[in-house]
Amino acid sequence: MGSDQVVTDGEVRGVSARAQVRAGIVITGTEVVTARIVDRNSPWLSERLRELGFDLVHVTICRDRPEDIRAQLEFMHSQGIELVCTTGGLGPTADDMTAQIVGEFCERELFLDEDLLARINEIISGFSVRMNWDQEALEAGSRKQALVPRDAAILGPAGTAPGLVVTPREGSDKPTVVVLPGPPGELQAIWKEAVETAEFKAVAARTVVFEEQMIRMIGIPESDIAKTLREFDEQRGLGEMEITTCLRKGEMEILVSHHPDDRARREALMQAFNDEYSHAIFSENGETIDEQIVRLLNGRKLALAESCTGGLLAERLTETPGSSKYFQGSAVTYSDAAKAQVLNVDAELIASKGAVSEEVAKEMAVGALGAFDADFAVSITGVAGPDGGSEEKPVGTVCFHAASADGRERALRIVLPGRRRDVQERAATVALHIVRSLIVDS
Amino acid sequence: MGSDQVVTDGEVRGVSARAQVRAGIVITGTEVVTARIVDRNSPWLSERLRELGFDLVHVTICRDRPEDIRAQLEFMHSQGIELVCTTGGLGPTADDMTAQIVGEFCERELFLDEDLLARINEIISGFSVRMNWDQEALEAGSRKQALVPRDAAILGPAGTAPGLVVTPREGSDKPTVVVLPGPPGELQAIWKEAVETAEFKAVAARTVVFEEQMIRMIGIPESDIAKTLREFDEQRGLGEMEITTCLRKGEMEILVSHHPDDRARREALMQAFNDEYSHAIFSENGETIDEQIVRLLNGRKLALAESCTGGLLAERLTETPGSSKYFQGSAVTYSDAAKAQVLNVDAELIASKGAVSEEVAKEMAVGALGAFDADFAVSITGVAGPDGGSEEKPVGTVCFHAASADGRERALRIVLPGRRRDVQERAATVALHIVRSLIVDS
Repeated sequence: MGSDQVVTDGEVRGVSARAQVRAGIVITGTEVVTARIVDRNSPWLSERLRELGFDLVHVTICRDRPEDIRAQLEFMHSQGIELVCTTGGLGPTADDMTAQIVGEFCERELFLDEDLLARINEIISGFSVRMNWDQEALEAGSRKQALVPRDAAILGPAGTAPGLVVTPREGSDKPTVVVLPGPPGELQAIWKEAVETAEFKAVAARTVVFEEQMIRMIGIPESDIAKTLREFDEQRGLGEMEITTCLRKGEMEILVSHHPDDRARREALMQAFNDEYSHAIFSENGETIDEQIVRLLNGRKLALAESCTGGLLAERLTETPGSSKYFQGSAVTYSDAAKAQVLNVDAELIASKGAVSEEVAKEMAVGALGAFDADFAVSITGVAGPDGGSEEKPVGTVCFHAASADGRERALRIVLPGRRRDVQERAATVALHIVRSLIVDS
Repeated sequence: MGSDQVVTDGEVRGVSARAQVRAGIVITGTEVVTARIVDRNSPWLSERLRELGFDLVHVTICRDRPEDIRAQLEFMHSQGIELVCTTGGLGPTADDMTAQIVGEFCERELFLDEDLLARINEIISGFSVRMNWDQEALEAGSRKQALVPRDAAILGPAGTAPGLVVTPREGSDKPTVVVLPGPPGELQAIWKEAVETAEFKAVAARTVVFEEQMIRMIGIPESDIAKTLREFDEQRGLGEMEITTCLRKGEMEILVSHHPDDRARREALMQAFNDEYSHAIFSENGETIDEQIVRLLNGRKLALAESCTGGLLAERLTETPGSSKYFQGSAVTYSDAAKAQVLNVDAELIASKGAVSEEVAKEMAVGALGAFDADFAVSITGVAGPDGGSEEKPVGTVCFHAASADGRERALRIVLPGRRRDVQERAATVALHIVRSLIVDS
């Protein structure tokens, strides 16, 4: 569309001319390539690298084959990458070879680290006896895990696998490699140690940490945001700010990232957003709607009555520890009978108005308030699809009702776009926004 | 552990000596690299490529930067890859450049395909007028999308973005490139067309489609499976079978993939599994526990009473369309008061035995049977953590109770390993297995 600064779905504008330190991630694991396991590590590492000011350029994934891992490391080197994080391949068996391959890549010979061996043996001795495992095989495994490249920083182990920070031989322009285990919990624990090593800090010292601000809106299409950005660019200029827009579960997220020198420009852009979309902006400090609900409830209790979301909103709220402080529960009333029995909805009302109706949504919310003895309740009843739609109530039609113990209420009926899962996720988000507006006004 | 055939978590043994056709996937999108959007395309494409007999060697992800996309394509070529699938970068704006970059890579000049332009204009004319979009910008976008490499097969468009199959110039050993759009729905629609093109078939004709069998167990540690495989290898030999084991949400999945000539060997291995683990195997045909529950219920109704899983199991069951045929609902009773009020659990019992107890689990299940008028109900109450554990009931302690309307029951109390989310997911899976055993015996 002519300008280089137009925003499209989830993309970034404004390529920085300032040289950033380039980073890469190498994910090893046949189970990832074959789609048996979803890689949760590269998104997590991507956020950490951004916070530290790295430019993450390439993410690569391969099976547990030495030649493929080696090829990916060489590719990273060929692309001027200065920091590589690898994940996986640190286990005790013969095909866990990352430490060895990285050692070769960095031209560091392997040696048996006796201290590390003792630590690993101590960790496994406890449960191996209890579980009646084969001792000989275990010892061979421990020795393998204690074979590490010379001069590497040893991290953890968090499980039984140690992490490593391996630097290339002096004079080489190869990257520093952070070798991390595959299990996300272990990886995250070991990462904290990795960033504290002198080897890591030597690379990170060359980065410029960009400042960033996240702004969240609801109910604004991307084309409007693109227009606002175009106009801002014409009037003031977007400069080298990186602006990523992302539609997620019905909300619009805009992340503005920039060199510290560009702070005034970012503030001006935020002012432009506020001038145009003040009614739609609900967060300017990164706080999610879920976090806002918890904060705004301030000890008061919330209950849900879910039909088409089938427990999705309850599950979303209870994913976070401590949710029992405010969350009473959800009546997932998937059948008409359940709505009548569990939430006391008038069966004749369901028959006459339909389960997806403003009237039933209201009785569901009121029923949930009572059944769970809550201060606030919100109901969701709709047609998630792919079947069940009609001319009057097409797929995506969802009725919401929020009610408070002191007798106030909010209602909404809308048609949400997307497939079944999209409708369910967007409905859960909209329900939170309706509750939010009810709490804010109390 | 000596042998090359030992299985560890999610890894593959038995490297095939038969040359397979190598494939790669290039995911483009700043929103993926920056972890704003989860890549759902590469897992989907991985399955399709495996079904067609390709060996997926490398998956790479980069931002919407031409030089990075180009570097990844060249990397694929350097690795002897014969088929590359790209996703993303096919939109109408200036930074959607995949078609152009792939054209250059394959040494095919771009030209304006007038037929395609007319089709794209027809698609967007309808909604663009309705939405009051900028006509001039739209036309520029359409012309960009109709600029395609010469001699490429044109696919779709499913949205407004056409897909492409681009072959290299004759005599070149570069890969054939399937250019696919980013939105998963569009990608999947266009893939069906891609595999039918002469250009695609020319590559696919060289693959050997491997046969595969999936077997699923519960309650067996990976070390036992490794031992069985070692023994089988010593006695009969694993040959060139590829065996991937994967622990997922508490279940053990074993996928055996092999050349059609090795069918007898795979059958012998399955027999060995059956000899040893008949009590633990619940599926030998790929059917999941969720699918089995639906089949075994055969029209009868299921209800849930969830505490520590917070609606996760209800959400899992209702993710699939048609779940209303058997699923009545779930009482997500996160507070003690809710257990008493909604499920009729004796408040004094909760006070004396605790919310996480066999006794309360039983009353929850019986309460759900009644409240939802169901044929079967299962309850889950436990300590998901990270807080709330005690010496008597450490984090991970979960009590289950399954009850049927005809008065039968099953109960279980276990300590599940892992973090909060792991405990929740494993508890949901265990609950389904308990219901399954109750239904099977009826």
